[in-house]
Amino acid sequence: MKISIERAALLKAVSQAQSVVERRNTIPILANVLIEAEGEAVSFRATDLDIEVVDKTLAQVERAGATTVSAVLLHEIVRKLPDGALVQLTDDGASGRLTVEAGRSNFSLATLPREDFPVMATSEYTANFTASAVVLRRLFDKSKFAISTEETRYYLNGVFMHIADAEGGKVLRCVATDGHRLARIDADLPEGAADMPGVIVPRKTVGELRKLLEDDDVQIAVSVSETKVRFATPEITLTSKVIDGTFPDYTRVIPAGNTRKLEVDAAEFAKAVDRVSTVSSERSRAVKLSLDEDRLVLSVNAPDSGAAEEELAVAYGDERLEIGFNAKYLLEIASQVDRENAVFMFNSAGDPTLMREGNDTSAVYVVMPMRV
Amino acid sequence: MKISIERAALLKAVSQAQSVVERRNTIPILANVLIEAEGEAVSFRATDLDIEVVDKTLAQVERAGATTVSAVLLHEIVRKLPDGALVQLTDDGASGRLTVEAGRSNFSLATLPREDFPVMATSEYTANFTASAVVLRRLFDKSKFAISTEETRYYLNGVFMHIADAEGGKVLRCVATDGHRLARIDADLPEGAADMPGVIVPRKTVGELRKLLEDDDVQIAVSVSETKVRFATPEITLTSKVIDGTFPDYTRVIPAGNTRKLEVDAAEFAKAVDRVSTVSSERSRAVKLSLDEDRLVLSVNAPDSGAAEEELAVAYGDERLEIGFNAKYLLEIASQVDRENAVFMFNSAGDPTLMREGNDTSAVYVVMPMRV
Repeated sequence: MKISIERAALLKAVSQAQSVVERRNTIPILANVLIEAEGEAVSFRATDLDIEVVDKTLAQVERAGATTVSAVLLHEIVRKLPDGALVQLTDDGASGRLTVEAGRSNFSLATLPREDFPVMATSEYTANFTASAVVLRRLFDKSKFAISTEETRYYLNGVFMHIADAEGGKVLRCVATDGHRLARIDADLPEGAADMPGVIVPRKTVGELRKLLEDDDVQIAVSVSETKVRFATPEITLTSKVIDGTFPDYTRVIPAGNTRKLEVDAAEFAKAVDRVSTVSSERSRAVKLSLDEDRLVLSVNAPDSGAAEEELAVAYGDERLEIGFNAKYLLEIASQVDRENAVFMFNSAGDPTLMREGNDTSAVYVVMPMRV
Repeated sequence: MKISIERAALLKAVSQAQSVVERRNTIPILANVLIEAEGEAVSFRATDLDIEVVDKTLAQVERAGATTVSAVLLHEIVRKLPDGALVQLTDDGASGRLTVEAGRSNFSLATLPREDFPVMATSEYTANFTASAVVLRRLFDKSKFAISTEETRYYLNGVFMHIADAEGGKVLRCVATDGHRLARIDADLPEGAADMPGVIVPRKTVGELRKLLEDDDVQIAVSVSETKVRFATPEITLTSKVIDGTFPDYTRVIPAGNTRKLEVDAAEFAKAVDRVSTVSSERSRAVKLSLDEDRLVLSVNAPDSGAAEEELAVAYGDERLEIGFNAKYLLEIASQVDRENAVFMFNSAGDPTLMREGNDTSAVYVVMPMRV
């Protein structure tokens, strides 16, 4: 193999690869990136056996071939090369080394045989559709904060992407929850998605997917089967196993009968929650909301360190209510609000509370109260 | 006590205090800041028993008095208050609480009696002089990287500030070393400093001092005794115990007879060292310098991961030389160079190497070679 490639293109491809590679590996070849050169293109492939990413880019291929080298090492080297450099990768097959040359720098890296590199088995996908980067970004960005980190509840360690019935018809929906809070985000149903099986996209895949969605104009080809999901741009293909489990029936958790409506400036609310929670002890972080006509008082009482109170002018017309929440959960859902106003729908101090942006029901959050 | 103070002034004072306070404390009052209001000023005092910082600032004092509250908590609260807010601190002495009010926010913080707060004993200083922030910044910034972190060699855990004889007469000098590398930085002798006893300024004090030196125009009043050192701006007074030990005779370590001169672009050199060291194993990080007429080849050989080589055009007229260094040490001293050119003076592959900026001898670095 012998190829010449621009440093910027190489860096982009290798960045995505080294981020999929797990830092601690018992199988040496999983630390490597598989480089394959043929025709006018070179592809960089990395895997942790659950996720596989392939980045294909144009290069000047003088001699076709393939080899594998440490993804982290290659990334570090390319990162440190001067901007605009032309990089030459040469592998003579005999020495067991890949030569990396750029200007007056010369590196020789240990390789492992391409034959040993595990390539993910191909799947029959039962649904194929296209969605814009903007749509997918919103679906995953607004839901991922609620993903559970409890390993025993492995079926909550991801975002449940599925087709659901909403008021206006079928939608593409992402849901995540950890039992304390829940996010439910809807998007218009893309053509060809109607028969998609519901899949739980793992947390790490959500993180890697995010890197494909930076550019607003990109259309993402999405393929889904019972066991795998694939997201592809023209250059990058991200394939991931999905979580083998059943996502719980979240619809029962979303309160339909909450009638006490609070409307509040989301940014002001978040800042006030952040301030009063300063005095609360790290462990409980409970903040109390006391509602009265057009008045909200946030308060925290931590016997050891002190107390805090802040008043906000809000829109509230129902009877008096006192309800407590974990400050961290309140802050997180308040920071999801893009518009000015957050709308909270309460029932009683013991019932789950619903939050949405204005009257928009395409992004809905639920948070469990705590006793204060 | 009852005072009103601008949020910005309060934040500045409390920032410095909370940074001196140690996060893990067995003595509760050491987590607190002592607030004393009298006349038209309020002072904020914090200590870890080795360092004491006092920040005095103007405030509207309605009722004089003093109390102590958690420095970290007060800092967090003030940081989160909106910019431009006027903050009111009230302590009625009876409730054991300090009230912090700003706009619609209201905090009540646990206090500890001011009588329990340890105030550092005053010292007789044997030397008092003034130095500009620019001069002190250069002395400490260029030497602190070489401070040892080995606790057993406690006398190397700081910067040795003392008066020394240089070519042009007496100078104010800062030296730091960890046995592998050494920095020696000189400044013109300030008036009144000639009789100053040499003191070892601890690492943490050097870090706290740095915050007093941000503004080029500030003059710093320096006071030194055998056991203490004090740095003061008009607002902030930083007092610190010095390390009770004898700094070793560093002059013997600085090679005087090295004659092989290498002149190299410091930035290019640093980048090349950084690149080739990528392949070296984390532990040794040895880089080899091979010198020949006007040519420097940097190389690293790490059997496990690979090899790297880079050539630089340099000015060198002596005989061939091969010498190895720890890449981290080379990078650190090369990054001290403000001017374009770094000058290295070598003897043999086994002798300490000297580095300076051009022909300037007011900043000199020594680095021990390692076998490659």
